[in-house]
Amino acid sequence: MSFRFPPPLENLIRELSKLPGIGGKTAQRLAFHILSLPENQAQMLAGAITAAKTSMKYCSVCGNLTDQDPCVICSDEKRDRSVICVVENARDVAAMERMREYHGLYHVLHGAISPIEGIGPEDINLKQLLVRLQDSEVQEVILATNPTIEGEATAMFAARLIRPSGIKVTRIAHGVPVGGDLEYTDEVTLSRAMDGRQEIK
Amino acid sequence: MSFRFPPPLENLIRELSKLPGIGGKTAQRLAFHILSLPENQAQMLAGAITAAKTSMKYCSVCGNLTDQDPCVICSDEKRDRSVICVVENARDVAAMERMREYHGLYHVLHGAISPIEGIGPEDINLKQLLVRLQDSEVQEVILATNPTIEGEATAMFAARLIRPSGIKVTRIAHGVPVGGDLEYTDEVTLSRAMDGRQEIK
Repeated sequence: MSFRFPPPLENLIRELSKLPGIGGKTAQRLAFHILSLPENQAQMLAGAITAAKTSMKYCSVCGNLTDQDPCVICSDEKRDRSVICVVENARDVAAMERMREYHGLYHVLHGAISPIEGIGPEDINLKQLLVRLQDSEVQEVILATNPTIEGEATAMFAARLIRPSGIKVTRIAHGVPVGGDLEYTDEVTLSRAMDGRQEIK
Repeated sequence: MSFRFPPPLENLIRELSKLPGIGGKTAQRLAFHILSLPENQAQMLAGAITAAKTSMKYCSVCGNLTDQDPCVICSDEKRDRSVICVVENARDVAAMERMREYHGLYHVLHGAISPIEGIGPEDINLKQLLVRLQDSEVQEVILATNPTIEGEATAMFAARLIRPSGIKVTRIAHGVPVGGDLEYTDEVTLSRAMDGRQEIK
């Protein structure tokens, strides 16, 4: 018989190891740490999980994660309502907001089209985007899906759906990441960087 | 104003980032993952934390983490009651048990003597070890504290306390780790490996 921890500990290790990037050894280390915490601190962690899961939902307008509906961005009167930035998930909204340069609205697709994984256009939050664009003041839709095969396919598909409405559709630039090294940049990125070159005035 | 997630999400990220080895970025990734889980799976994680914290305690005999008192090892009639292996923490018991070669009892110190951190002999579970050794059938105490300055100091201190009782006191061997490379072994370890060399018969 192999060594086993007492059931409550085994169970905690198993639950922790289900988290992404947390292997068996790390789960064990985390579990022991949690058991070494004062009672109230362990409860704060458990409580934070329950509270976040209970109170966080998706904005009915843009699909972003929020604790109020519509979300703070959709209900912010100071945001530029003429632009919508389309992203794959709520983490992308956070990344964009951290940049602090974009002041328009968002639309979260909750995924990307992926025939291999059986995810079609109807499985992502795309129809709702088209509904939003009707009778709205939107003048530009920025497609900021990931620079992956799925993200590109999704952007192309969305562009084809939106363009007939006459709204300007743009795609974020592909190129060499700032601080990156040309030597280690893959050919596809480099080729895109060359294609997208801009004149220095 | 810098970008902030809604309070329940910020709170979950903050609680997760308190865990050892979990930085801000990882905490954020974990929080988003937890929010994407089905309700019952998130509750299973929160519940596992609460349940483990509530039902796991320290064995009143050896100090190991357990859900029953005395622990399964202390109450196992088949274990060899003539040997006690002294370790710093409950994770060390798990490591020893995984080896599956040791069948004696344990004693968990819950730390090591460390003057720098202000941890003295009275701050670790050492007095209880001496109490256990009185009127017991113990013939050998194996000091398996870590091969660190603190672990060595603790082993030396414990040895000095136990030896007058006439009980044999041993220290686990220091040497080159199996699978390791001499070239990358530090001098102190190498010196210990030389000192501890054994005749091949």
